[in-house]
Amino acid sequence: TRPSELGIPFGVLPTGQLNSITDVKGLIVGHFTKNEGEHIRTGVTAILPHGGNLFQEKVPAAIFVGNGFGKLAGVTQVQELGNIESPIILTNTLSVAAGIEGVVNYSLSQPGNEQIQSVNAVVGETNDGYLNDIRGMHITSDEVIEAIQNAKSGPIEEGNVGAGTGTVCFGWKGGIGSSSRKLPESLGGYTVGVLVQTNFGGNLQIAGVPVGEKLGKYPFKDALEKSDGSCMIIVATDAPVLERNLERMAQRAMMGLAKTGGIASNGSGDYVIAFSTAEGLRIPHSVPAQLLQKAEFLGNDDMTSLFLAVIEATEEAIINSLFAAETMVGKDGRKVEALPKEKVLDWVKKGNH
Amino acid sequence: TRPSELGIPFGVLPTGQLNSITDVKGLIVGHFTKNEGEHIRTGVTAILPHGGNLFQEKVPAAIFVGNGFGKLAGVTQVQELGNIESPIILTNTLSVAAGIEGVVNYSLSQPGNEQIQSVNAVVGETNDGYLNDIRGMHITSDEVIEAIQNAKSGPIEEGNVGAGTGTVCFGWKGGIGSSSRKLPESLGGYTVGVLVQTNFGGNLQIAGVPVGEKLGKYPFKDALEKSDGSCMIIVATDAPVLERNLERMAQRAMMGLAKTGGIASNGSGDYVIAFSTAEGLRIPHSVPAQLLQKAEFLGNDDMTSLFLAVIEATEEAIINSLFAAETMVGKDGRKVEALPKEKVLDWVKKGNH
Amino acid sequence: TRPSELGIPFGVLPTGQLNSITDVKGLIVGHFTKNEGEHIRTGVTAILPHGGNLFQEKVPAAIFVGNGFGKLAGVTQVQELGNIESPIILTNTLSVAAGIEGVVNYSLSQPGNEQIQSVNAVVGETNDGYLNDIRGMHITSDEVIEAIQNAKSGPIEEGNVGAGTGTVCFGWKGGIGSSSRKLPESLGGYTVGVLVQTNFGGNLQIAGVPVGEKLGKYPFKDALEKSDGSCMIIVATDAPVLERNLERMAQRAMMGLAKTGGIASNGSGDYVIAFSTAEGLRIPHSVPAQLLQKAEFLGNDDMTSLFLAVIEATEEAIINSLFAAETMVGKDGRKVEALPKEKVLDWVKKGNH
Amino acid sequence: TRPSELGIPFGVLPTGQLNSITDVKGLIVGHFTKNEGEHIRTGVTAILPHGGNLFQEKVPAAIFVGNGFGKLAGVTQVQELGNIESPIILTNTLSVAAGIEGVVNYSLSQPGNEQIQSVNAVVGETNDGYLNDIRGMHITSDEVIEAIQNAKSGPIEEGNVGAGTGTVCFGWKGGIGSSSRKLPESLGGYTVGVLVQTNFGGNLQIAGVPVGEKLGKYPFKDALEKSDGSCMIIVATDAPVLERNLERMAQRAMMGLAKTGGIASNGSGDYVIAFSTAEGLRIPHSVPAQLLQKAEFLGNDDMTSLFLAVIEATEEAIINSLFAAETMVGKDGRKVEALPKEKVLDWVKKGNH
Repeated sequence: TRPSELGIPFGVLPTGQLNSITDVKGLIVGHFTKNEGEHIRTGVTAILPHGGNLFQEKVPAAIFVGNGFGKLAGVTQVQELGNIESPIILTNTLSVAAGIEGVVNYSLSQPGNEQIQSVNAVVGETNDGYLNDIRGMHITSDEVIEAIQNAKSGPIEEGNVGAGTGTVCFGWKGGIGSSSRKLPESLGGYTVGVLVQTNFGGNLQIAGVPVGEKLGKYPFKDALEKSDGSCMIIVATDAPVLERNLERMAQRAMMGLAKTGGIASNGSGDYVIAFSTAEGLRIPHSVPAQLLQKAEFLGNDDMTSLFLAVIEATEEAIINSLFAAETMVGKDGRKVEALPKEKVLDWVKKGNH
Repeated sequence: TRPSELGIPFGVLPTGQLNSITDVKGLIVGHFTKNEGEHIRTGVTAILPHGGNLFQEKVPAAIFVGNGFGKLAGVTQVQELGNIESPIILTNTLSVAAGIEGVVNYSLSQPGNEQIQSVNAVVGETNDGYLNDIRGMHITSDEVIEAIQNAKSGPIEEGNVGAGTGTVCFGWKGGIGSSSRKLPESLGGYTVGVLVQTNFGGNLQIAGVPVGEKLGKYPFKDALEKSDGSCMIIVATDAPVLERNLERMAQRAMMGLAKTGGIASNGSGDYVIAFSTAEGLRIPHSVPAQLLQKAEFLGNDDMTSLFLAVIEATEEAIINSLFAAETMVGKDGRKVEALPKEKVLDWVKKGNH
Repeated sequence: TRPSELGIPFGVLPTGQLNSITDVKGLIVGHFTKNEGEHIRTGVTAILPHGGNLFQEKVPAAIFVGNGFGKLAGVTQVQELGNIESPIILTNTLSVAAGIEGVVNYSLSQPGNEQIQSVNAVVGETNDGYLNDIRGMHITSDEVIEAIQNAKSGPIEEGNVGAGTGTVCFGWKGGIGSSSRKLPESLGGYTVGVLVQTNFGGNLQIAGVPVGEKLGKYPFKDALEKSDGSCMIIVATDAPVLERNLERMAQRAMMGLAKTGGIASNGSGDYVIAFSTAEGLRIPHSVPAQLLQKAEFLGNDDMTSLFLAVIEATEEAIINSLFAAETMVGKDGRKVEALPKEKVLDWVKKGNH
Repeated sequence: TRPSELGIPFGVLPTGQLNSITDVKGLIVGHFTKNEGEHIRTGVTAILPHGGNLFQEKVPAAIFVGNGFGKLAGVTQVQELGNIESPIILTNTLSVAAGIEGVVNYSLSQPGNEQIQSVNAVVGETNDGYLNDIRGMHITSDEVIEAIQNAKSGPIEEGNVGAGTGTVCFGWKGGIGSSSRKLPESLGGYTVGVLVQTNFGGNLQIAGVPVGEKLGKYPFKDALEKSDGSCMIIVATDAPVLERNLERMAQRAMMGLAKTGGIASNGSGDYVIAFSTAEGLRIPHSVPAQLLQKAEFLGNDDMTSLFLAVIEATEEAIINSLFAAETMVGKDGRKVEALPKEKVLDWVKKGNH
């Protein structure tokens, strides 16, 4: 059961129908989970802004670096050209190469791409090395393609799945989480969806309640405590927003992370990848020279409600990942407990103002 | 009475002695308040990293742009050279010119600066035009110098004072606020101090309690609601931190702002200016050519506790500004109420987990 | 006589009719020159992207920081919002405050702006303190307005005029220079215009000929040599280019500067401000909420010819400033010679491949 | 024979002994060349800032993005943390995954790294797909390790070698090039070395002489002309320079590229990676918490001569790559001619002022 179904509020805007990134129409998500033997707890999650040929029909996009201690591939081309041209891949830190290779192979083999000699793979990661034998580099490029091929619309799995299989968040089992917001029609009626891979630390707050302190898990509680880790955040919208304002939306996702108690610690690789699925903003790969692009898009003055939607959906997606993830035993017999939901719910409801 | 004295918690780290930016030793702060007649509600706040000749003894510094819809002067030189060489000035949007002129006049006339022909003034602002006749441009460069000359150590005034005289925050009267954190000796024993000029909107949360919703003031509640505005944030530390890591500290201040419910709306000019007062890191203006700078400074791995300190102190400084500010009537008879503290305290204590 | 009229080539693209920034239709430029008594050698140059109400009809814009040791005001708002909303002002380093005040006064008093409470002034500068009594701060805000009011289309004065009155470039008298390129119709037929305020050092090359070495003036020739200084560069185009690609155009201007032998020395404040005057890309200040902006603009693939135009026009504009500037005596009887044009022309023509 | 040996000058500063990046003491370079059959023309070049364990002894570093249309991996961590912790790899666009995998395997297997679970691979590329069957992805991770293991000090091969095997520059055969500058003792006596992988277009100039125009190869000469491509630039120095000033040095390399006639066209992925080999600035991976780093480093005021060194060495390294590269036939029988050196030399010497 997700927190929102239990009456825990995250802000003032309504959620989309699924309360998931897949509320953004056309977007599809696929997982490949590798939970094998005693030591392998990892996987891949693929987010496709649309189900067509992404290289031929790019989407406007931006990346914001919350804390750059990470290996996210593909950053500078997104920033320079303002678009994404391939499936976005999330996986573990030492499998970024497999992620790139998978995206390249996938893109080169898509019908219509027979002549392309270049593709910008956007591959993010968090370090699941506490539960997973990360040095074993157990993800192959074929498994990356499998995640892409698994992509579909509709409800998505959360918790110990895909790239979230082996992650740890606030000292509890983390994973994949998602959430969405749908603006009222008076504000355009647009949808904002967020998907997170949670593997970071800090001082956990749920709907404002300082759960981390109550549970006795927070940074610097003792000398052994570590709050490092990372969070990958994907922000999607059907609102017609160009890359500059997508970057501003991406930047707000870190404010949602902050509301969960995340602190973007030194060792955290925190990145936000934002894109618009608006069909009118697609960027064809091949156009006649000098042909002007025509576009209709939101101006600066209409961004604030989208900013709020990003903040709320990011906060909720992170908490959703914690509620979905279950206790896991992995590498070297290490065990990471699921968040003690009943206790937490009790506190949150009492403190629920 | 400040919230912390009423038992409202903001995080897990202890505050400094004054719970103020002036806990950072050597740093001084001065206000000039211009509350005159029916329409003038503005002022100036000056923050001096140290009380000596700042041009001759610069401090390492960085600026992070949370949302750049503002007129902060001096940004690029701080980013390029990694230092601040003059008092930092906060004032209203249309008085930035007066701020620069004041800093230039002050710097040119300081003993030892008889030959200088250039000085980088760092002048931030928020727009107090709801309560203040901002178009009248009522701040003079002499009044800026007066704020500088008023600078002193010890407790600082908060609320409707200096650059906070006419500001509005979350729909209530905002102003100047401050807070600090002192790390345990095991984490270095360093102090982080924050000062804010609060003039922004969003969905007010106090210590996690959704006060804004309870009070019925939050973004998009109705079509007339505005959440625009700005927040200037000054982060000071005595920790020996160079400019790259100061920028990372500055970036975390926006996470503290997020925890108060701020959303960095489109119209908000949100900036964080961070510097270190560590004496060993001073940068002399005149050095023999080829003389190496010698420095001892914290590495990346020791930054996390300082990040947490920034987040906590920023959150608390903002709330402090709301608790200190009193109801004000200004331009055209407009009235902005103080936060209804008793009601809020009651909620916060009940929800206080 | 300008170098191009003497047969000195700067690249392969044709110039516009005037070989000046004012070839960009609608754009106007005004100077105010203050050459008074023995010690005052300074001024103001104003560039207006169009002659209407810039606040009400903003233009897409970007700023690239070549070297941020300068005081350019207005940077972050241009970068955040992607537009310019006021006349661009160039003046001396210690008159930035006057520049801002002038722009604010001008904007507040324009018909239609009676209610505005904020305006982002973009004010650049170079340090003319070698020839000018810069500490005297001799520019007033009224004189800034005078420069704005002097703005007109048609040929513009170069050399010792406006903001170039007292500048020094490569050890010779610098000043204002301008140039333009007009793309062939097959490449869109667009015009790119550049205006520079030259006050920097390096190893002067003219059309590839190492004039600085031949003249014995180049960096580090002896211990006394200084190559510091600054260059402000304005890039205008009528091509329909949005802010991200305008920033890319701006970045290329530093490549044009490089071809003159500029080195962006530590002390140089080198900035490029780029904007499009395309009428279809104007951004109205007031629009109904949720109304989509409609635009037709060039895609990434069509930018290369515009990049080349920027490089060539910047190189030529800088050299034009040197050819137009005349020997000047200023503060404390200091004398800066004009470039010895005949000698230089002789070398350039011989070496003219 | 290299141009400098033929008396062609590139600036005013003396070169290092080898006029190569390996003049920077301790730095080593290795190539792996894959020139096989009719269609494979590619390779790998590895640059190791020092020959020890780079992960355990990181070096201060920075990256400047000249034009981000490229796939350079590892950017954000270098920018966030200010260091490089692995060999720098250059290869072809579609072999970045192999590059990362090679660096990861190499790093994980180095003695002392048995426990590491993360390493930031910095892998740059240019697109050699005109001469090379790039879609075949012919580089393996083992071949990347082979390039690393081939690394040595002393003179380095230039031209059609390593990552330069199949590249094209200004329409002629490009490749690997290198150059260096040694500052006079009065300016510190430091060495700056540059290595380039040249694969870009523009309007070729050699020592100021417009060779491209004379040869009839320049952008937009006709509709078929393409000036796309990329340039990877490595800047090394033994000067004790921290990451902020290394970034400034990196930025100047694009000014050196500009002097060869490069224009950073839309399709060019132009990146500069700069680092310092100064032993006193090494960053140990493992240090006791709270232990201050001690460092002696150059201040801003001493950077200008290093900037000039970067500009000159970059220009010369690019031209060196053209002089070293030989005519090559590759994929589909395509032929790219070597620069016609005799003709060019004749022009350059005549025009050599």
